[in-house]
Amino acid sequence: MQTPLPSNAIQAVRPIESWFEYPVRVQPHHTDYAGVAWHGTYIAWLEEARVEYLRSIGVDFADLVAMGCDLPVVELAIRYHRGMKMGQAGVVRAKMLAMKGVRINWDYQIQSPDGQDLYVSAQVTLVAVNRQNGKIMRQLPPTLEQTLAKLVSG
Amino acid sequence: MQTPLPSNAIQAVRPIESWFEYPVRVQPHHTDYAGVAWHGTYIAWLEEARVEYLRSIGVDFADLVAMGCDLPVVELAIRYHRGMKMGQAGVVRAKMLAMKGVRINWDYQIQSPDGQDLYVSAQVTLVAVNRQNGKIMRQLPPTLEQTLAKLVSG
Amino acid sequence: MQTPLPSNAIQAVRPIESWFEYPVRVQPHHTDYAGVAWHGTYIAWLEEARVEYLRSIGVDFADLVAMGCDLPVVELAIRYHRGMKMGQAGVVRAKMLAMKGVRINWDYQIQSPDGQDLYVSAQVTLVAVNRQNGKIMRQLPPTLEQTLAKLVSG
Amino acid sequence: MQTPLPSNAIQAVRPIESWFEYPVRVQPHHTDYAGVAWHGTYIAWLEEARVEYLRSIGVDFADLVAMGCDLPVVELAIRYHRGMKMGQAGVVRAKMLAMKGVRINWDYQIQSPDGQDLYVSAQVTLVAVNRQNGKIMRQLPPTLEQTLAKLVSG
Repeated sequence: MQTPLPSNAIQAVRPIESWFEYPVRVQPHHTDYAGVAWHGTYIAWLEEARVEYLRSIGVDFADLVAMGCDLPVVELAIRYHRGMKMGQAGVVRAKMLAMKGVRINWDYQIQSPDGQDLYVSAQVTLVAVNRQNGKIMRQLPPTLEQTLAKLVSG
Repeated sequence: MQTPLPSNAIQAVRPIESWFEYPVRVQPHHTDYAGVAWHGTYIAWLEEARVEYLRSIGVDFADLVAMGCDLPVVELAIRYHRGMKMGQAGVVRAKMLAMKGVRINWDYQIQSPDGQDLYVSAQVTLVAVNRQNGKIMRQLPPTLEQTLAKLVSG
Repeated sequence: MQTPLPSNAIQAVRPIESWFEYPVRVQPHHTDYAGVAWHGTYIAWLEEARVEYLRSIGVDFADLVAMGCDLPVVELAIRYHRGMKMGQAGVVRAKMLAMKGVRINWDYQIQSPDGQDLYVSAQVTLVAVNRQNGKIMRQLPPTLEQTLAKLVSG
Repeated sequence: MQTPLPSNAIQAVRPIESWFEYPVRVQPHHTDYAGVAWHGTYIAWLEEARVEYLRSIGVDFADLVAMGCDLPVVELAIRYHRGMKMGQAGVVRAKMLAMKGVRINWDYQIQSPDGQDLYVSAQVTLVAVNRQNGKIMRQLPPTLEQTLAKLVSG
């Protein structure tokens, strides 16, 4: 028998609606000799989805960088389940999993628009870096932290 | 006094509405050390705009390739007027200038969304190639030719 | 007390010399707004090193593909330890870790030429796919298997 | 009878040896669905050849940028004569054609290693820009100008 969840656990479960969705299309320049998206192409799409997700909640990545805070990728793990062919449309689904200090973990799936095919799943970790001295920040800029906190708890 | 145009000249002037417009955004992976889009990035955008233009008039480029007709770029000339910064939005404006046998000429401008800034102007020539033997086709596939002919005369 | 290794264990330990080394240089087109190699750049370098490693042992990747065997990446994990700045030289060190049927695991480090700085560490898994039907092969092409087997046992 | 050249004309004729040669190889990530290098790939190679040419004459491009002088591409024209297939080796041949104030013109050919096949010919114009204010410089930094002057007269 499964132990019943505590009453507040429901809220801790991220509802499926909380995925941010970013549409993509395999253009000729994304393909390789096999006629499918080259495996590095998806890395760029993960970044685009992340930047647009942040924009959708009021964080302009270019502004953040101009303010002296960079968010480089420090870890990335990706599984390729099925290739996307030239011309195919897809949806990058992104969500923020956790903030641990200045580390921010993201989860991704790239799917067909109808959700029937899973092309890629990935996890990416960012860390906040002070652009002036190149060092890892002790804490996120307050406005960024507050905005991101809503996503994690959302 | 300006010489009056011959009566058919009006129709020969392509109205400004005939530009196909394709929106773009400078993502981090498009930038270089200068914080602006790397100059090769625009080449990919020209291709994306061309493919989406063809899609908008019923020509699926992937289908065309599957049918054995490729349209490689054989000439490209591009002028960079002003750099696009990270995060900036732009519009690729594309139009087909002429079909000369199996050569297809395109004209491009990349502008700010409000049309006030011109970032890039470019011309691209494609040629139809038979994928089986790698040779230049003697004529375009009839359905492609008919569809494109409407654009040039439009 | 540590259990003594069986006498043949020494040979199973891959000597450090067995890393294949592939030199790289951060060119302007590799950089992003931060003046360092964009994080997807390294993915291309891992592939280049792998292809050149195979070439160095007599396997021409283009020939393999022409014969109907593709080796797509199915998993990739990468850690970014330190950014490589524009103009910096580096060395991609690659070795094959294991063949498990048609899955081939690779290990990578990207270092400074003097070996003092570690920029990236990564693991990549390839799987052999039949290009005609798109399915995973039951076994590697015999000549490929024999050639790769020497690397693993080497 | 051919008119004799003035005595200093010999030196003005650029001998064929003055091409800088930069080797390239079509890697899988360079290819597109047609199994040949995607047309934007060559743009990156032109840049790599230019940077390495400058390095060979003592100009480190990253140092130049750090000193506040950027050399963005302002015009580029390229003709694609023949596609390079995956795995093929080539040579980018680059030479500086002229300096007109702060504009620097380059000429390029991408050939097969044996010189028998011409894949690409291209011309690129750079202009010197002050990184602090983003404006075109009135003159090149003196050390750069002196070094480049040797190439043009060479």
